[in-house]
Amino acid sequence: MFTGLSAFPLTPVTNAGFDEPGFVRILERITSAGADSIGVLGSTGSYAYLRRPQRSRIAAIAKSHAGNIPVIVCVGSVSTDEVLRLADDAQTVGADALLLPPVSYQTLREDEVFGLFETLMQHVSVPVCIYDNPGTTRFEFSDELHGRIARLPGIRSVKIPGVPSSPVDARVRVQRLKSRLPEGVTIGISGDASAATGLNAGCEVWYSVCGGLFPLTAKEITDAAARGEHERVVQLSERLQPLWGLFRKHGGSIRVMAAAAGVLGLTETDCLPRPLRPLSASDIAEIATVVSELNLK
Amino acid sequence: MFTGLSAFPLTPVTNAGFDEPGFVRILERITSAGADSIGVLGSTGSYAYLRRPQRSRIAAIAKSHAGNIPVIVCVGSVSTDEVLRLADDAQTVGADALLLPPVSYQTLREDEVFGLFETLMQHVSVPVCIYDNPGTTRFEFSDELHGRIARLPGIRSVKIPGVPSSPVDARVRVQRLKSRLPEGVTIGISGDASAATGLNAGCEVWYSVCGGLFPLTAKEITDAAARGEHERVVQLSERLQPLWGLFRKHGGSIRVMAAAAGVLGLTETDCLPRPLRPLSASDIAEIATVVSELNLK
Repeated sequence: MFTGLSAFPLTPVTNAGFDEPGFVRILERITSAGADSIGVLGSTGSYAYLRRPQRSRIAAIAKSHAGNIPVIVCVGSVSTDEVLRLADDAQTVGADALLLPPVSYQTLREDEVFGLFETLMQHVSVPVCIYDNPGTTRFEFSDELHGRIARLPGIRSVKIPGVPSSPVDARVRVQRLKSRLPEGVTIGISGDASAATGLNAGCEVWYSVCGGLFPLTAKEITDAAARGEHERVVQLSERLQPLWGLFRKHGGSIRVMAAAAGVLGLTETDCLPRPLRPLSASDIAEIATVVSELNLK
Repeated sequence: MFTGLSAFPLTPVTNAGFDEPGFVRILERITSAGADSIGVLGSTGSYAYLRRPQRSRIAAIAKSHAGNIPVIVCVGSVSTDEVLRLADDAQTVGADALLLPPVSYQTLREDEVFGLFETLMQHVSVPVCIYDNPGTTRFEFSDELHGRIARLPGIRSVKIPGVPSSPVDARVRVQRLKSRLPEGVTIGISGDASAATGLNAGCEVWYSVCGGLFPLTAKEITDAAARGEHERVVQLSERLQPLWGLFRKHGGSIRVMAAAAGVLGLTETDCLPRPLRPLSASDIAEIATVVSELNLK
């Protein structure tokens, strides 16, 4: 479950609330494409904006539409008690694995983050992936801490943010982390623009926002990586530069993917939970052009 | 209500959950000292770690013990919908004012933060203070945005983080912001080590973590500021350098104030909601020494 393409769909939230039919349409693209896993309620899945009953419902819908594809559910919250309740809910609806980001309000210390994971691992029976995303959680992991947490029974993967852009530096970075991890704990790349470099550097899985909406496009890349076709991986990612450029332009992927989902007719273009707001009409038009010209699918 | 000393108590959360008797003991220090307002469920009040029913209960307890002192309730949440529900709850229990930090998960844009405040102001009938705390919310206000929001009817104060350490620069900074604000909207300083400089630079209120536990000590400073005794304000704050040093040493005030509340016997020294953890025994001993030697009260 912690290899290949892990597709992270967005959770459309329109003026009328959670758009369940839209979410199901997004899920169906992922299952049709044959992703290796589905990561629901990640950052782009807007978990931070949704209440516990909504998160439980969304995980249940994912499970009921995923067929044989494992579903990984993010259980992030600033409160440890709430993380445990969310983990209970996710397990109740059949989550195959959990993803835990150490979301901070007060800046967390290393022993506090270790304690958070230790508490979760004592509480749950499904495997867990460490979600390292300093841009949203505001916590910077050291490799040493990753290694310490990864030795807790049940930890199976580490989702890292981007890698250095140089292939050599990226390989050094991935190998340095890998040397800290027990056998069987995979490293997954996120930060879609880094995916090719990360996969070529030894990451075994792409935790992919792109794959949440354009799973066929993303799967070409992970399939090429699985065959060891490093140059092809780079070429396929290079072709997507206009998409990575949109992510940079709009300070991240979420507003771009929300607009793209609307452009594809899967939900509305205004499908972000408030206070987040949709991009301007001209920005959405630019996104529509990129989706069409790159034939993203 | 938006002048003088606004005391921000911590919310003790022990292994057994919210420590209501401990919280009441902390409130009683504030009311006995005659603070000008009480700001409950601020950052040090751990609002981010508490659930909606807990937050409503804590606001209600504050109201029932505050006597004639106005109670300001923080209604921060990453979700606008949740902010509105929290505001309803706070108004229901009699909150005299609300405090809103633009808590971010995805980095917010200026128009999104304006939209958040606009939505709140259309929803509530009590006055609101803008809570500018980039260290925890991850949103940096511009003065222009402060001014735009402050013109919404019902906005009555802006709580700013520290000011420049030079008195001249601090005065320029406060005057620049003040020139953007409508008549009657006060500026309040937070970041306790900056309080003296901020008050002398023209801030009309100290939103004070120190005042949440040591209200007599803090009130000496705001009283001196109200009398225009600038040198005395500086002297009183200089005397507290060991306390400001502890805040710096421990990456903020919350863990220090939690330890101090335990040292004073008001609650347990382990009174932080997980994943936050108490400081070490030796750190707590150092805090006890500072509380005693400075005669903080």
